[in-house]
Amino acid sequence: VSPMDGFRRKSRGKVWLVGAGPGAADLLTLRAHRVLQGATVVAYDELVSADVLKLAPASAEFIAVGRRASGCRHHEARIHSAVVERALLGHEVVRLKGGDPFVFGRGGEEAEELAAAGIPFEVVPGISAALGAAASTGIALTHRDCASAVTLVTAHAHLEHGDLSRRVPAEGTLVFYMGLTRVSETCTALVAAGRELATPAAVVSKATTAEERIVVGTLADLAQKVTAAGLQPPAILLVGDVVLRRVVSASIPPALSPRALG
Amino acid sequence: VSPMDGFRRKSRGKVWLVGAGPGAADLLTLRAHRVLQGATVVAYDELVSADVLKLAPASAEFIAVGRRASGCRHHEARIHSAVVERALLGHEVVRLKGGDPFVFGRGGEEAEELAAAGIPFEVVPGISAALGAAASTGIALTHRDCASAVTLVTAHAHLEHGDLSRRVPAEGTLVFYMGLTRVSETCTALVAAGRELATPAAVVSKATTAEERIVVGTLADLAQKVTAAGLQPPAILLVGDVVLRRVVSASIPPALSPRALG
Repeated sequence: VSPMDGFRRKSRGKVWLVGAGPGAADLLTLRAHRVLQGATVVAYDELVSADVLKLAPASAEFIAVGRRASGCRHHEARIHSAVVERALLGHEVVRLKGGDPFVFGRGGEEAEELAAAGIPFEVVPGISAALGAAASTGIALTHRDCASAVTLVTAHAHLEHGDLSRRVPAEGTLVFYMGLTRVSETCTALVAAGRELATPAAVVSKATTAEERIVVGTLADLAQKVTAAGLQPPAILLVGDVVLRRVVSASIPPALSPRALG
Repeated sequence: VSPMDGFRRKSRGKVWLVGAGPGAADLLTLRAHRVLQGATVVAYDELVSADVLKLAPASAEFIAVGRRASGCRHHEARIHSAVVERALLGHEVVRLKGGDPFVFGRGGEEAEELAAAGIPFEVVPGISAALGAAASTGIALTHRDCASAVTLVTAHAHLEHGDLSRRVPAEGTLVFYMGLTRVSETCTALVAAGRELATPAAVVSKATTAEERIVVGTLADLAQKVTAAGLQPPAILLVGDVVLRRVVSASIPPALSPRALG
């Protein structure tokens, strides 16, 4: 390495762990947008939409990261070393994750690895799926008349760790980040943990996108309705009285047309 | 009203219930930013920062809404009728709320009132304080090694409704949206509800702003430490093992200077 190489060389790079939000590209934060625009490397989760990726420069290197739900840690480790390697070469690396990096995004583990490697990083929060779906479908997660708390629960909590009743409270709103195939067993587990069969519940699929759909039912019949409706992933399950308080906007009246004025 | 008045008149206005995020202005979403730029009326919570308000046109009418924590519904009702009235006059009204409109923002009630008045509305989600503080302080709310759920709890849950153990689960991360004066009684209530005295806990004040501060302790000593540190509101309380897994970024090394190359 000649002194001149050293003089020209950029300082060590940096990694941004960035929340890509729930789906719609304009639900990224202004900060996430700015950081993406300066990225030279973008390592993105499969859940991140093409519209979001378009916010990064076309000249950036794009690295697809395998499906989060696969739980294949081997693959994740390989991706992560690619991120570390690019950062050590001086790149501005954006690690783009669906929703928020610190809500079921494994951002904690990745931040630890970056710290261990001595790589500067920053975490840019994102609109988590629960918040995006709530805003989009008109379900106030903590409507004051019926919920003083909302619990966000990971897909596999009750399967990996057993008793669901230690992981979710007896009252308040619950949001499960999960596979559609888990709706039935989750509703059953909630009833076993003490929730009423008649508890209102809904599944929202593809929240905030043009293909968003919602199916509303109870813990007793939701799974069947979801199957009948043929919903597509990704999806979340909302449970609690707030589902019944869903508010839908009045439609926007067409502007007065000259003809209407006769 | 002459036909010509009708021809020129805009159609009925619209209200956007917009999340202003946790503090930093660049943590608004791109959609919130766009909507704000088109606002002719901005009705904002006291918690919303001046930097955020600057994103709206200076020509807009600005209406300050009283402190959320005061619980003065009379005042809220008056503000809300001002919002409805402006919308009926054809204004593009942005109702700007700290954090997310549907997480302790009373957005549910306001949406119901808009629907009842036949006013079209849209909800634009925001980064809730828990997510902003987590990203900013390096605390992964659902670090896979120690939490499969995170519960967001309103300030007054245990005071207004009694038994905290029905409102928060036995395990997992908890985030209380609350007044600083409530730290001591909340920690005490959590121990009464079964959490260990040694449970890690932290208060983050003014998260994501230049004045952000964090105080870390346990349910046994946090309240005392927070008082000693003289933290300022707004603040949130985080409880759970994830607090101990907090990750801080390596500092950014200065670029090689010519002198260093000797």
